[in-house]
Amino acid sequence: MTVTDYKSVAAQKREARDQAFLEKWLIPEEKLPSADVKDVLSWPLKSGYLTGEEITITESTYNEMHEKIKCKEWSAYQIASAFCHRASIAHQLVNCLSEVFFVDGLKQAKELDEYYEKTNKLKGPFHGLPISLKDNLNVKGQATSIGFVGLAFNPKEYETDSLIVSKLREMGAVFCFKTNVPVAMMMPESTNHIYGNTVSPFNRGTTSGGSSGGECALGPLLGRCYLGIGSDIGGSLRIPASLQNLFTLRPSSGRFTTYGSRSGLPGLESVASVNGPISTTMENLEFYCENLINHGKQWLDDSKCLEVPWRDVEVPEKLTIAILRDDGVVKPYPAIDRALKHVTESLELQGHEVIDWNPLHHERLTNLIGSFFLSDGGEHCKDLLNLSGEPVFDYMKPYETSADLPVSKLWDLHSERTKLCNEYLAQWNKTCEKTSSGNPIDAIIMPVSPYSGVGVGKFRYIGYTAVFNALDWAAGTVPVTRVDKALDMKDETYMPRNPMDAQTYEEYDVDEVEGCAVSVQVVCKKLQEEKVVKIMKNVSEIIGTSDYWSRS
Amino acid sequence: MTVTDYKSVAAQKREARDQAFLEKWLIPEEKLPSADVKDVLSWPLKSGYLTGEEITITESTYNEMHEKIKCKEWSAYQIASAFCHRASIAHQLVNCLSEVFFVDGLKQAKELDEYYEKTNKLKGPFHGLPISLKDNLNVKGQATSIGFVGLAFNPKEYETDSLIVSKLREMGAVFCFKTNVPVAMMMPESTNHIYGNTVSPFNRGTTSGGSSGGECALGPLLGRCYLGIGSDIGGSLRIPASLQNLFTLRPSSGRFTTYGSRSGLPGLESVASVNGPISTTMENLEFYCENLINHGKQWLDDSKCLEVPWRDVEVPEKLTIAILRDDGVVKPYPAIDRALKHVTESLELQGHEVIDWNPLHHERLTNLIGSFFLSDGGEHCKDLLNLSGEPVFDYMKPYETSADLPVSKLWDLHSERTKLCNEYLAQWNKTCEKTSSGNPIDAIIMPVSPYSGVGVGKFRYIGYTAVFNALDWAAGTVPVTRVDKALDMKDETYMPRNPMDAQTYEEYDVDEVEGCAVSVQVVCKKLQEEKVVKIMKNVSEIIGTSDYWSRS
Repeated sequence: MTVTDYKSVAAQKREARDQAFLEKWLIPEEKLPSADVKDVLSWPLKSGYLTGEEITITESTYNEMHEKIKCKEWSAYQIASAFCHRASIAHQLVNCLSEVFFVDGLKQAKELDEYYEKTNKLKGPFHGLPISLKDNLNVKGQATSIGFVGLAFNPKEYETDSLIVSKLREMGAVFCFKTNVPVAMMMPESTNHIYGNTVSPFNRGTTSGGSSGGECALGPLLGRCYLGIGSDIGGSLRIPASLQNLFTLRPSSGRFTTYGSRSGLPGLESVASVNGPISTTMENLEFYCENLINHGKQWLDDSKCLEVPWRDVEVPEKLTIAILRDDGVVKPYPAIDRALKHVTESLELQGHEVIDWNPLHHERLTNLIGSFFLSDGGEHCKDLLNLSGEPVFDYMKPYETSADLPVSKLWDLHSERTKLCNEYLAQWNKTCEKTSSGNPIDAIIMPVSPYSGVGVGKFRYIGYTAVFNALDWAAGTVPVTRVDKALDMKDETYMPRNPMDAQTYEEYDVDEVEGCAVSVQVVCKKLQEEKVVKIMKNVSEIIGTSDYWSRS
Repeated sequence: MTVTDYKSVAAQKREARDQAFLEKWLIPEEKLPSADVKDVLSWPLKSGYLTGEEITITESTYNEMHEKIKCKEWSAYQIASAFCHRASIAHQLVNCLSEVFFVDGLKQAKELDEYYEKTNKLKGPFHGLPISLKDNLNVKGQATSIGFVGLAFNPKEYETDSLIVSKLREMGAVFCFKTNVPVAMMMPESTNHIYGNTVSPFNRGTTSGGSSGGECALGPLLGRCYLGIGSDIGGSLRIPASLQNLFTLRPSSGRFTTYGSRSGLPGLESVASVNGPISTTMENLEFYCENLINHGKQWLDDSKCLEVPWRDVEVPEKLTIAILRDDGVVKPYPAIDRALKHVTESLELQGHEVIDWNPLHHERLTNLIGSFFLSDGGEHCKDLLNLSGEPVFDYMKPYETSADLPVSKLWDLHSERTKLCNEYLAQWNKTCEKTSSGNPIDAIIMPVSPYSGVGVGKFRYIGYTAVFNALDWAAGTVPVTRVDKALDMKDETYMPRNPMDAQTYEEYDVDEVEGCAVSVQVVCKKLQEEKVVKIMKNVSEIIGTSDYWSRS
């Protein structure tokens, strides 16, 4: 295709999406907040476009909606309608949706109502609960472009759902749209030549992050009803969740099925892309994990899934937490340091024990992950880019210039990784020498990235998240605070330790990121999803952010 | 090194091993059965070299030995001594040992006795139980040549145990020797330029198989006390176990740690080599699984291990089994067909349900596994061969001629495999349409290989086992019978379907394999190790081989 071709295909696709919105819900351009209004978090509620009922519904958690459906106070249709209306408004504020199929979602909800009416039985634990989907998840009847112009209509409609979508659909979940992602889902910002950039509702001058950036820009605007599914191969759930103060869980591979979803790096197995939930409430997140795993039994249909139920685990009343404030490569921005101090003090104040964490092998493990991403010499990405002839974003340049590695070299990288991972695990065990209980720590708490908000084009370092993709450990994010100009001034005395550190430091401009979200990462070991979720809950209660997204 | 060099290094290594045997136990050449005595199964017991007590000890199971140790009727030293003496005899019959460290094992046993004497506590569930080790497992103070002359003294002594060895050692297990393997553990016969071939005690004119061939040749000669650890990447536990009528379990990856053991294909992750137990009794095998997993907690120290306990599972009283008799590629020899008919009839006679199994994608999955093995272009193998300049066995020629694949092609093979595996799983689910219960089958029972015994150099096809390495499913072997000249005549009317089938058929010579072992494979799904073990037990009881290795 020529240059005009890729632009015209992208325009057609954009046009098709825009046509799928419902006229009645579209807000005239002039009634929307102007571009210089950065913080739009409360706009959907305050704008007057939502009815009281729509607000009540979308401010309800999964358990609350489930109860209301069960007692027939609310219909699935009512919920889907409120959900779509509020998502429609959100989209106009931050450009978060990719595929829009409100009509299908409402039809699906209606059928669920009819089913319940007729049988007096709910379809399953997700009956009538709306779930937002990242673009890479295939939905029957919809396209999946994952940011490539060449995939915008290729195929125009998928014939089957991704397995996780069909499992949830069987259990009654309702799907109304999908959300924007970066090209190949391999950039830390959700932008592409079809839909452009998805910005953060905390500060529309900053990026929503990536690759689950469409999801995470939407979440805060959708309220407490929000639960979405994203994916994470180097931080793609945790990075955008942290830039929007959402709760997310990056599970170990095998807990949630990824079968039948579209990948930007298909066939890469050296590091597994995983699916995980993102939400405004821990309640929704737990509901999702427990019901999807225990009722969905994904291992019956995905040979890579592990037959491990969602288990009830105990955590000690007195937690022992290792804190990492700086990985020694790129120093986090002041607000993140402030957040970690706050977490530390709050933990200690309530009698929990805090020790330091050493970022053993973080830099090398991050580099290894990068090598795995690029190990096919970008061949698969280039093939997809070549479908349309679209240009390559700066973030993706390494996919153009890397070599298609010989497998013999890949094996050597694998061997190195295995050794480093076991040394990392040994360091965890060795903490028993430092804790007062004599047991190893319960979790690590640390930054998600160096960025407490970041302007478009400046997200350069994923070392704080990627290390746990290399390890395949369970990790989540917990909201802490927002950037405050008065508190988060640049430390003018700081001496950067390397060029990346220097650039990151130089690019910090507190005015640019005013009001941005500040979260921390909670990390447990492989397959300890239940434990990390419990500790995320505890920590958010301890620091007072468990109701971060309640209206009160 | 020159040709003489590799031969002289091999001779030195052989000499060092031979020197490690205890003089008092060595049987003069002329007292050993002559080479034309093929079946030596009962020779150790009948030869008169073992004392009555040594026989009683070595004919005891793990539970029996554990009880005797606990009540101080037997010491760990007595057991280790009987174990070593009988292994010494076995080695003289079939050439099964690679590293011999009887003295260390006896010392270890003595220390355990002293510990028990002093503390009145057992070291752990394996206190005083001897475990045989495949050569690839590192033992502190010993070498690990895995069939390469260049590794014979490189290093001369490992400084640490493989993780599985140290875990078992901490729990009181005793190690006295390691067993022979093929070069790189990548041939289906246990031969190499250091130690030569390990033959089957059922018929010394036939191979013991590989790669856990040293283990499996030893097992039948050691009696009911025998438990060894082997490994399996394409059939390396199941093939030799079936050629010696032993029980083995090939677990899914992540159940048993492989960390810190020496690999012939280091860094290969497209298909995982797994560790598993081999034994003369299901009792020992279960003892090992339960205690190693639940007490050893390998996941604490191996980042690839899954935190999944050994679980108590229920299997239906009335089993539903799918039988595969022929994979459509290479037809099994007559005795295997006879064994499967016997299993089928026995199951049906006792009210169990039997349906047919379709070998969906078996050929392609086997070819994919082969591509993964060779995907580094044999670079790692060649490096190890070049250390000594030793020649390449015919079985290993593909490692000399394959290309070092670009990673982009490897990704495509991964994607294909993922799809085929899920289709295979779907076929399992679909059996519910054929079963009287309306549930899917409980297990597949099928051949382990086409061979009911095979002469040296003629084991050509691993399709019956490799498919489950591609799937990473749980599979085991159960002894059924032995080859009988009168029953297992060549079917002269058979029309082979392809060159491999033709060659296999042509090479069948019932006289050559008279008396050889005939086992079947029992297969359950991924992570269903507990279920496959339970069904192996049930099946062996149903067909009357649960006491196959008892003296009576």
